[in-house]
Amino acid sequence: MIQPELKLRRDKIRRLMQQHNIDAALIACNINLLYTYGRIISGYLYLPLDSPARIFVKRPNHIKGEFVHNVRKPEQIIDILKEEGLPMPAKVMLEADELSYTDYMRLANLFPEAEIANATPIIREARSIKTPLEIELFRRSGAAHTKAYNQIPTVFKPGMTDLQLSIEVERLMRLEGNLGVFRVFGQSMEIFMGSLLAGDNAAYPSPFDFSLGGQGLHPALPGSVNGSPLKAGETIMVDMGGNFNGYMGDMSRVYSVGKLTQKAYDAHQVCIDIQNELINDSKPGTVCEDLYNKAIDMVTKAGFADNFMGIDQKAGFIGHGIGLEINEIPVIAPRIKRELEAGMVFALEPKIVLPGIGAVGVENSWAVNTEGVEKLTLCDEAIVEL
Amino acid sequence: MIQPELKLRRDKIRRLMQQHNIDAALIACNINLLYTYGRIISGYLYLPLDSPARIFVKRPNHIKGEFVHNVRKPEQIIDILKEEGLPMPAKVMLEADELSYTDYMRLANLFPEAEIANATPIIREARSIKTPLEIELFRRSGAAHTKAYNQIPTVFKPGMTDLQLSIEVERLMRLEGNLGVFRVFGQSMEIFMGSLLAGDNAAYPSPFDFSLGGQGLHPALPGSVNGSPLKAGETIMVDMGGNFNGYMGDMSRVYSVGKLTQKAYDAHQVCIDIQNELINDSKPGTVCEDLYNKAIDMVTKAGFADNFMGIDQKAGFIGHGIGLEINEIPVIAPRIKRELEAGMVFALEPKIVLPGIGAVGVENSWAVNTEGVEKLTLCDEAIVEL
Repeated sequence: MIQPELKLRRDKIRRLMQQHNIDAALIACNINLLYTYGRIISGYLYLPLDSPARIFVKRPNHIKGEFVHNVRKPEQIIDILKEEGLPMPAKVMLEADELSYTDYMRLANLFPEAEIANATPIIREARSIKTPLEIELFRRSGAAHTKAYNQIPTVFKPGMTDLQLSIEVERLMRLEGNLGVFRVFGQSMEIFMGSLLAGDNAAYPSPFDFSLGGQGLHPALPGSVNGSPLKAGETIMVDMGGNFNGYMGDMSRVYSVGKLTQKAYDAHQVCIDIQNELINDSKPGTVCEDLYNKAIDMVTKAGFADNFMGIDQKAGFIGHGIGLEINEIPVIAPRIKRELEAGMVFALEPKIVLPGIGAVGVENSWAVNTEGVEKLTLCDEAIVEL
Repeated sequence: MIQPELKLRRDKIRRLMQQHNIDAALIACNINLLYTYGRIISGYLYLPLDSPARIFVKRPNHIKGEFVHNVRKPEQIIDILKEEGLPMPAKVMLEADELSYTDYMRLANLFPEAEIANATPIIREARSIKTPLEIELFRRSGAAHTKAYNQIPTVFKPGMTDLQLSIEVERLMRLEGNLGVFRVFGQSMEIFMGSLLAGDNAAYPSPFDFSLGGQGLHPALPGSVNGSPLKAGETIMVDMGGNFNGYMGDMSRVYSVGKLTQKAYDAHQVCIDIQNELINDSKPGTVCEDLYNKAIDMVTKAGFADNFMGIDQKAGFIGHGIGLEINEIPVIAPRIKRELEAGMVFALEPKIVLPGIGAVGVENSWAVNTEGVEKLTLCDEAIVEL
């Protein structure tokens, strides 16, 4: 990662720190280290408001450089800061929504005189406005994601189960460079690479706050495929995470085994119309709840409201910010007054679940610019017959 | 999951609670919910010392049953406990090493009068002694793991990169039923399915505390393959996570492109000898550090001490407990006075890294019984020439 890019990101965080009278951040969680240091280490990045960031590395042992210090334990940080003549912060921020209680307390005890603030919402806020390089990484991710999805018809074989097809799609994603891990903010949501939902499994309620659920193969990992054979007249919604370079691009496309009923094609078109209408409205200043409400209006007029975003258990959103994690700021959901800003990147995913058929709809990733939005996942949106 | 099994597990936790004068546990983290409830939900399991467990479910919305309550937020738990006539605990335990600081504080505030204890070490202690069903699940995991590894020679093609081979091995694992997710205790260690280390990449230091590292494909995910072509005369160590049913079986095997130098076969045999000697000693009462020290003695006498468990950066252990997570109790490492007990399941992984050749050695999963140990990963241990 080039130094000016990291400086840009750190200064974005510093500007928010200044607004909250915070003198320093001590960053310890993987994703925020990746954001501010360009790589994941076992260690800490100390970010003072007015002087260069300091890196405290436990592992790996071969990292050296200016402002890099090797440590065995976090308690050494304070001694090093004092040796280097850095002042102790009056107000320091720690990642309270990400660090475990035990780790948080240990780090908080390093600053017995300081007020402690929560770094998580502040860094998430900084991360919500992407740099030009981050948006370029999303473009590349979208291109690789598209290349993988375009090969799906070549790996389908009649008689396959949803699991067998998912395995082949996972392989296509990996061959195009997907890193595999699917990163989610919050400790509770888990998924392996993404989801593939065939037929009625698309309506199976999940413990997680993803757009749709699926039963999963085992109670040890709810979500996605359940091992059922793929059946004629049913849809397959592929929604794999697009982590090709750390950035979680997001794209869903629909495949079908043979032809579907007209109702399915109609519902699919309703989702595409909702997407296009919402995207037409999207520019800096657009309010997230207005987008959500317009989608509900449109799907209600089209007669599919009961099947929108699930059946018995529905997702409470139609879109979400994306970045190093799949669920970033903003959320496109009811009562979200947040306005779109240039640099935000979000996924929009209007989906309808039809009993006996499965999920239809579309999901793309979009970057907000000064005029409107740019599509990052350039892949045909029609249902592909397998 | 059958009720008597869950009762067995909950009572194991209750016995430890009693020793610490703890009246109740409020369990919120996925792995501990899976352990005590047999499935992952978004919600809580409240475990009183003297009355049945109560389940508080946020999602999915279709779970019903005796002692199951649907809630929107944790604050409702207290009202329901009161309605049901349950006493407020004087001392309650929360998962302090796993819950975020913010979540911990929210749950702790539900019990303003109670003393709060750390549930994490107590539940990990309970989980360290497996039930007969858990050991049977490990046996099945070992069989599926072996079936996948036995097919590795069929997917190798000359000229492949380490990444290409890894993708085919991942596919074999998934086809045998692997759930894909690789669960690690602690928030910082991440890996996709496991590792495949070819040639000198086996010596590449990692930020994580796995036995070996690897450079990885991208700074966003250090570890495992780096995209290098597989070369004649080098080894490939395959160390994939064996998560076929929630239990993380662990097994490493070595493959080679063509023949290796005699030194490589010698070093491999040293590792197998260490394994066999240590396993011969392993039974209830064996002290973990004694196993570690014996391994160091043996590898030193054999002349490979400098290359044991890495070169520049070495792992600080030669074995580790396994269970729903890959790093459970006990750890086979220096200064660990812990004794083996019947019901413990651990992985033992003596490995030697040779410059210009790669990693050799072996890893198997073992269950301690009253007499000694049972091997759970029954797969040939010789280096397989591809």
